[in-house]
Amino acid sequence: MSTKTLETRLHALANNSVFEWTAVSVIIASALLLGAKTFEISPTTTQILNWLDWGITVFFVLEISVRFFACSDKKRFFADPWNLFDTIIVAVSLMPVSASDQALVARLIRVFRVLRMVSIIPELRILLNSLIKALPQLGYVILLMFIIFYIYAAIGTTMFEAINPTLWGDIAVSLLTLFRVMTFEDWTDVMYETMEVYPLSWAYYLSFIFFTAFAFLNMVIGIVVNVLDQEQSRAYAKEHADDPSIASLQAEIVALREAVLSQRRD
Amino acid sequence: MSTKTLETRLHALANNSVFEWTAVSVIIASALLLGAKTFEISPTTTQILNWLDWGITVFFVLEISVRFFACSDKKRFFADPWNLFDTIIVAVSLMPVSASDQALVARLIRVFRVLRMVSIIPELRILLNSLIKALPQLGYVILLMFIIFYIYAAIGTTMFEAINPTLWGDIAVSLLTLFRVMTFEDWTDVMYETMEVYPLSWAYYLSFIFFTAFAFLNMVIGIVVNVLDQEQSRAYAKEHADDPSIASLQAEIVALREAVLSQRRD
Amino acid sequence: MSTKTLETRLHALANNSVFEWTAVSVIIASALLLGAKTFEISPTTTQILNWLDWGITVFFVLEISVRFFACSDKKRFFADPWNLFDTIIVAVSLMPVSASDQALVARLIRVFRVLRMVSIIPELRILLNSLIKALPQLGYVILLMFIIFYIYAAIGTTMFEAINPTLWGDIAVSLLTLFRVMTFEDWTDVMYETMEVYPLSWAYYLSFIFFTAFAFLNMVIGIVVNVLDQEQSRAYAKEHADDPSIASLQAEIVALREAVLSQRRD
Amino acid sequence: MSTKTLETRLHALANNSVFEWTAVSVIIASALLLGAKTFEISPTTTQILNWLDWGITVFFVLEISVRFFACSDKKRFFADPWNLFDTIIVAVSLMPVSASDQALVARLIRVFRVLRMVSIIPELRILLNSLIKALPQLGYVILLMFIIFYIYAAIGTTMFEAINPTLWGDIAVSLLTLFRVMTFEDWTDVMYETMEVYPLSWAYYLSFIFFTAFAFLNMVIGIVVNVLDQEQSRAYAKEHADDPSIASLQAEIVALREAVLSQRRD
Repeated sequence: MSTKTLETRLHALANNSVFEWTAVSVIIASALLLGAKTFEISPTTTQILNWLDWGITVFFVLEISVRFFACSDKKRFFADPWNLFDTIIVAVSLMPVSASDQALVARLIRVFRVLRMVSIIPELRILLNSLIKALPQLGYVILLMFIIFYIYAAIGTTMFEAINPTLWGDIAVSLLTLFRVMTFEDWTDVMYETMEVYPLSWAYYLSFIFFTAFAFLNMVIGIVVNVLDQEQSRAYAKEHADDPSIASLQAEIVALREAVLSQRRD
Repeated sequence: MSTKTLETRLHALANNSVFEWTAVSVIIASALLLGAKTFEISPTTTQILNWLDWGITVFFVLEISVRFFACSDKKRFFADPWNLFDTIIVAVSLMPVSASDQALVARLIRVFRVLRMVSIIPELRILLNSLIKALPQLGYVILLMFIIFYIYAAIGTTMFEAINPTLWGDIAVSLLTLFRVMTFEDWTDVMYETMEVYPLSWAYYLSFIFFTAFAFLNMVIGIVVNVLDQEQSRAYAKEHADDPSIASLQAEIVALREAVLSQRRD
Repeated sequence: MSTKTLETRLHALANNSVFEWTAVSVIIASALLLGAKTFEISPTTTQILNWLDWGITVFFVLEISVRFFACSDKKRFFADPWNLFDTIIVAVSLMPVSASDQALVARLIRVFRVLRMVSIIPELRILLNSLIKALPQLGYVILLMFIIFYIYAAIGTTMFEAINPTLWGDIAVSLLTLFRVMTFEDWTDVMYETMEVYPLSWAYYLSFIFFTAFAFLNMVIGIVVNVLDQEQSRAYAKEHADDPSIASLQAEIVALREAVLSQRRD
Repeated sequence: MSTKTLETRLHALANNSVFEWTAVSVIIASALLLGAKTFEISPTTTQILNWLDWGITVFFVLEISVRFFACSDKKRFFADPWNLFDTIIVAVSLMPVSASDQALVARLIRVFRVLRMVSIIPELRILLNSLIKALPQLGYVILLMFIIFYIYAAIGTTMFEAINPTLWGDIAVSLLTLFRVMTFEDWTDVMYETMEVYPLSWAYYLSFIFFTAFAFLNMVIGIVVNVLDQEQSRAYAKEHADDPSIASLQAEIVALREAVLSQRRD
């Protein structure tokens, strides 16, 4: 029964707005700390920052523990991907790192602590969820775009490999070069180089730009239409929620006619 | 009658989902094979890849044959442009190639086998059809854009040919240079060069950018409006499908009045 | 009376589809001729092209004369800006040019003959008219954008003139440099140069990019909303054209009540 | 009472269209003057421009005074942020400046006088207000985008600092480099440099481009949907303003039934 009381207390603490705002502040502090460390700083400051870093790690462990023990159903806690994500980030940053090589890994893990900002602010969580939900709808357009890229990369490697192996050496490099062409980044340099050997190779680049631009445009329109559709059906439902429907009006009129006719029969 | 039985069997095979998934897998395998060959590989691996390539060609011939003989009306088989496309791709890749010069052609044909991905996945086929359908609607905007390009290319060649023949030598090269300017790729280099001779030539580039950007914007809006229109009329039709129309309501009321008036006459 | 007959005949000719298609073909031929002349060609070909050019000029004079004399009201002919445009283009290309300096002018005038393509194809004329109509709606956004450009150009000239007079020498040059920054064309080169003197000048560029991008976005949305609005009200009007309005339904019901009440009084 | 009369007169003057157009003209003149001064000019012209500048300052003081004294409630005058803005701009440009260092500041303040164009033209004021109102709606998307930038900048600094300290020296510089990558400005140069050390670093750049492009797209769609929503509800309200509602129709029918039923009871 004392466990129950502790759980209730922890639950109250975890949902306390002061606790939540402290957590957000510490996450922001950890992000700023991360940024501060990239500047050239004196050994004393480094020492202070390391202490702060240690303090943040301790706070994170405490915070996740509070949230875990406050949860009545321990299994359900890890069913939420955001809780799982938080726990992994905190657990990994606890691992002892000694050698210089692993220090890089340790620092990179610390970077992902910033992502806890997303997990703790509900609005960002909703936003990210909706972004992720929008992705599969685009699946086939992305597949079509990849097929276009793949075919052009295969042609590019076959034709231009001898001209510039750095750009067209194999299909992976060619895919990267084509992505560069799609972003218009010095694409004419790539084109002029191959046009010296194949004067008609401009057709290769221009057709590629047209195809990808067209497919991309279609993708954007796809998203816009999807979003607008959802908005409109929501707006329509809201507008007409209080309206008596035309169907109910018709029922009303039919009832009225019944009344008139029955009167006649009287 | 035995032919009939064979045709029925082949038809069952062609529509078997295992057969379809095998075909998709083999097409993906042929695409990966195509990519793998662009990397530097040992002679042994090349040998294995060549055998695989041969195996894929055989499978494609068998697959197209099954689909052809499964089709009850042989003429209708080729009426479908996708079937025609598949047959041509497979037939061409069967042609024997010996000399090194033709090897390039053979390899390029193999690239188009990847396009069979589009012909075999129905969703991609629908997507591509809708893209192709959207094109003619844009016909006149594209024509207007080409006229803008042509006029500017003619002016550019007349004025700037002496400054830089590589960029403005003839109308074809000028069109390419203008396309480059439209993609903003090092366009200031092109401009600064001509501004040394004609200090006011910035007006040429800026007006060109404005015209094409405006025409392009119009094109995009044209597509968006078109797509939204179709969506909306579909949405409207769906929403109001079950509603009794206002017209039917009116008929109802008129009938009611008739009833009241006839009662009065009684 | 014979003038009348001639006018009627010319009118029939001017509206003859063969005459129209001939005119379109000759305009396309003049455009191709213009392009062909920019390539290096033998003296004989030049001679042929010159004869063709002369023939096209004669045809244009005849064509405009037919259309002018076919018009019953001569004043109304020039009231149409497209007719005026056609006449000016044809008249100017008739002027004799001898010296080499004026040859350039003569060639440039010939370029504008391609614009007759727009004046002769009705669909392009409608498209261009609608583009021109869309411009004034954007007036204030363009003015706001110009104010942003002007303020940044004035600041840029004041601050960065000493650093690079080629890019920031006076307000005109600064405006051009800012347009270049807006198109992202080597904008970091411009920025890194000034950051060496003023390390905080990145704020100048980033704020400029944000402001112009935001204003541009607003402009695009403005056009889209405008176009959609027109589309929707047209679609709404079309959808509801055959529907009896709710107002007429109400009138119907009121009349019905009158009928019932008058019956009661009987 | 004489003050009252003066105030009334000033009020009439401040709202006089001649007065308003004079003010707009003087603001435009001050903008042109500002631009003219950036060109190389003879001392005589500089003298004339300085006199004009002095005249404009005097006019601005008079104009703001007229508007201030014309306002019946002096406190409400400064409650309007545009009036406050105008007063500050005019007051600051009155401050005497002597040393050459402060001359730069004085010139910069003069630049902001151009912004008075926005404060004096009502349409621009409305436009700017609506732009500012649209910003907070985007708050969370901008925050998400900043988190993406921050995480990538932290990773970039950790990994690439040793390769090129100019681009990846600390988190501030890395954020600027990432903004450059987002604008596609020579982003392949940045990538190729790090790919020499970490061959897989293309994944870093491509994923960054995808994430920011996707978040940006979402932001744009967010604005479009918002704007369209407002437009539609306004359009809907306008369309249906004169229509009797379905609810009033229903009330009408109920009243009719009442009439019929009461008649029956008679």
